Amino acid sequence: MGVIEETVKQITGADQAARGKARARLSQLTMPYWALGRLLDLAETLAGISGDTSFQVKRKTIVVMAGDHGVTEEGVSLYPKDVTAQMVYNFIAGGAGVNAIAAVSGARVVVVDMGVDADLSAPGADGKLFNRKIRRATSNMAKGPAMTRDEAVRSVIAGIETAMELAPTTDVFGTGDMGIGNTTPSSAIVSVITGKSPAEVTGRGTGIEEAQWRSKVDVIERAIKVNQPNPADAFDVLSKVGGFEIGGIAGLILGSAANKKPVIVDGFISTAGALIAQAIEPKSADYMIAAHLSVEPGHKAMLAKLGLRPHLDMDMRLGEGSGAALAMCVVDAAWQAINNIATFESAGVSKADK
Amino acid sequence: MGVIEETVKQITGADQAARGKARARLSQLTMPYWALGRLLDLAETLAGISGDTSFQVKRKTIVVMAGDHGVTEEGVSLYPKDVTAQMVYNFIAGGAGVNAIAAVSGARVVVVDMGVDADLSAPGADGKLFNRKIRRATSNMAKGPAMTRDEAVRSVIAGIETAMELAPTTDVFGTGDMGIGNTTPSSAIVSVITGKSPAEVTGRGTGIEEAQWRSKVDVIERAIKVNQPNPADAFDVLSKVGGFEIGGIAGLILGSAANKKPVIVDGFISTAGALIAQAIEPKSADYMIAAHLSVEPGHKAMLAKLGLRPHLDMDMRLGEGSGAALAMCVVDAAWQAINNIATFESAGVSKADK
Repeated sequence: MGVIEETVKQITGADQAARGKARARLSQLTMPYWALGRLLDLAETLAGISGDTSFQVKRKTIVVMAGDHGVTEEGVSLYPKDVTAQMVYNFIAGGAGVNAIAAVSGARVVVVDMGVDADLSAPGADGKLFNRKIRRATSNMAKGPAMTRDEAVRSVIAGIETAMELAPTTDVFGTGDMGIGNTTPSSAIVSVITGKSPAEVTGRGTGIEEAQWRSKVDVIERAIKVNQPNPADAFDVLSKVGGFEIGGIAGLILGSAANKKPVIVDGFISTAGALIAQAIEPKSADYMIAAHLSVEPGHKAMLAKLGLRPHLDMDMRLGEGSGAALAMCVVDAAWQAINNIATFESAGVSKADK
Repeated sequence: MGVIEETVKQITGADQAARGKARARLSQLTMPYWALGRLLDLAETLAGISGDTSFQVKRKTIVVMAGDHGVTEEGVSLYPKDVTAQMVYNFIAGGAGVNAIAAVSGARVVVVDMGVDADLSAPGADGKLFNRKIRRATSNMAKGPAMTRDEAVRSVIAGIETAMELAPTTDVFGTGDMGIGNTTPSSAIVSVITGKSPAEVTGRGTGIEEAQWRSKVDVIERAIKVNQPNPADAFDVLSKVGGFEIGGIAGLILGSAANKKPVIVDGFISTAGALIAQAIEPKSADYMIAAHLSVEPGHKAMLAKLGLRPHLDMDMRLGEGSGAALAMCVVDAAWQAINNIATFESAGVSKADK
């Protein structure tokens, strides 16, 4: 576990002095005190993450972690497993939701094959597709562990290594996921870590009806009963009821934090990865920015556990990093606020009468 | 009232056929059904506004309507009235909050002097500052009408004319406001139009304390009692408890609607203008997009009356069009969704198993 320990050692938490310096500047902007609300909170957070008020957010990278899930044989999703690989090709071709939304802020989208159940090869995918495949799909968690403990560790390391490779050309990371069936392990993770029942934290995923939802809840209950994951042990939870792409997301977050880079956590699946990252190193939460509130009912409990408040609430439930892509604009606005708004003094504007 | 009647006649309401065509395309995108939620709702709305699924959103113009208020002599604001003119110069110089946030989506910011209590002149303000001054500040509404009925009509016409002038170079409008004291008339307008008490719909504005807030509520109660505005007559409400910039915003919205252009309504003051526009022509609401939910407590009641749901909730309360500027990114994302996401067929992705 050398790589993970070494990475965790570099995660020092938010720089309070830089936050204070940012707060001082933001309080002098030509507007009533803190009148841009959460945009100014975010500017302060970004300063705390980088350790400096002169942080940059120009180079944006959304990392879509992709993997397949053995649990799909229980009929938890509306879509066939083949769609995972088909969507990877869609990401590479630039035709998916995340690509379109990423274009708004000029973010780059890369895909990491963490465990897609296909041999992926795409001409022209250079720099867009990373091969970190642990195995072709996890095992069916309703019958036993989704993966071995060693595979769980390796999936987190793969995420860390991806962050390390991309960090020199990235100012802000965004997480994303692709994996048919992956709301099922995500619901299992939030249930195990927060103690809420599977029924409370399980949603309709891609759009299943009532009967299929009941069966999905039953699958999650069985997975937890069969595997008995230990909530205090992140790798035990990840290996027993997780997924390769979820481990990859956890690693990406730890790697971003070690590099003092902000990481915008997308929706439900990404936040499951964030819970694993937090369980490995609590200070990693200082580097996370919650993109949006997902339609999935378990998302609120996850965000509460992380102490994060989402920036958008748009009834989105696509994953892929689409929410992170949209939130990149909010990050840009926070950067603009701290860099390009005049102060009362510089603009010659009168202060409040008190 | 020729200009207003002529403008209103051109406001036909959303094109249902275009909405249906947009819905058909959006349902075929490579994602679970409607998985981008409100982003897809917005794309459908934009198609209904323009009457075509091939609408454009590239050229963005935020129009900041500025005016002063006689009611400031009652001590309703934390800032001296001079700040209105000082901020106009800040907008022209590009140093205000709205300028910084507008830069994120490349929106242009223009200022309209509707009634600033100063003779504004700024070198280099060509194309950025429009002179439509009705009068230097309204009268104190706590003692009598803020303006004459003729001035109210002229302020709405000035807004319409601004929209007509900018429409040929604008795909999407955003509204904005500047006017020290203008949360006071805005609270009065929402109270009169929705029937809610002034105390329910009055907030802290620029940041006043409890005692000053009580006095502000008292001023609004007096203004309504003294003037007895008729809720069924938009020009009566605007003239008695409104403001020149609020009339300008109402006119800008009517002019946008007549040109079949979407208009992003900013926060509390802009939405007061939107209520006036709706009272003049109810179908104008079809062209409005609510940017964000303001911290001002009366904003929810306004949005409910308009039948609008805000797209952002960021604890913002700056005005200026800052919320509209941020929401421009959401509009860009909606455009991306309908234009640049592949369909199941075009991308060769399998559909749901049913």
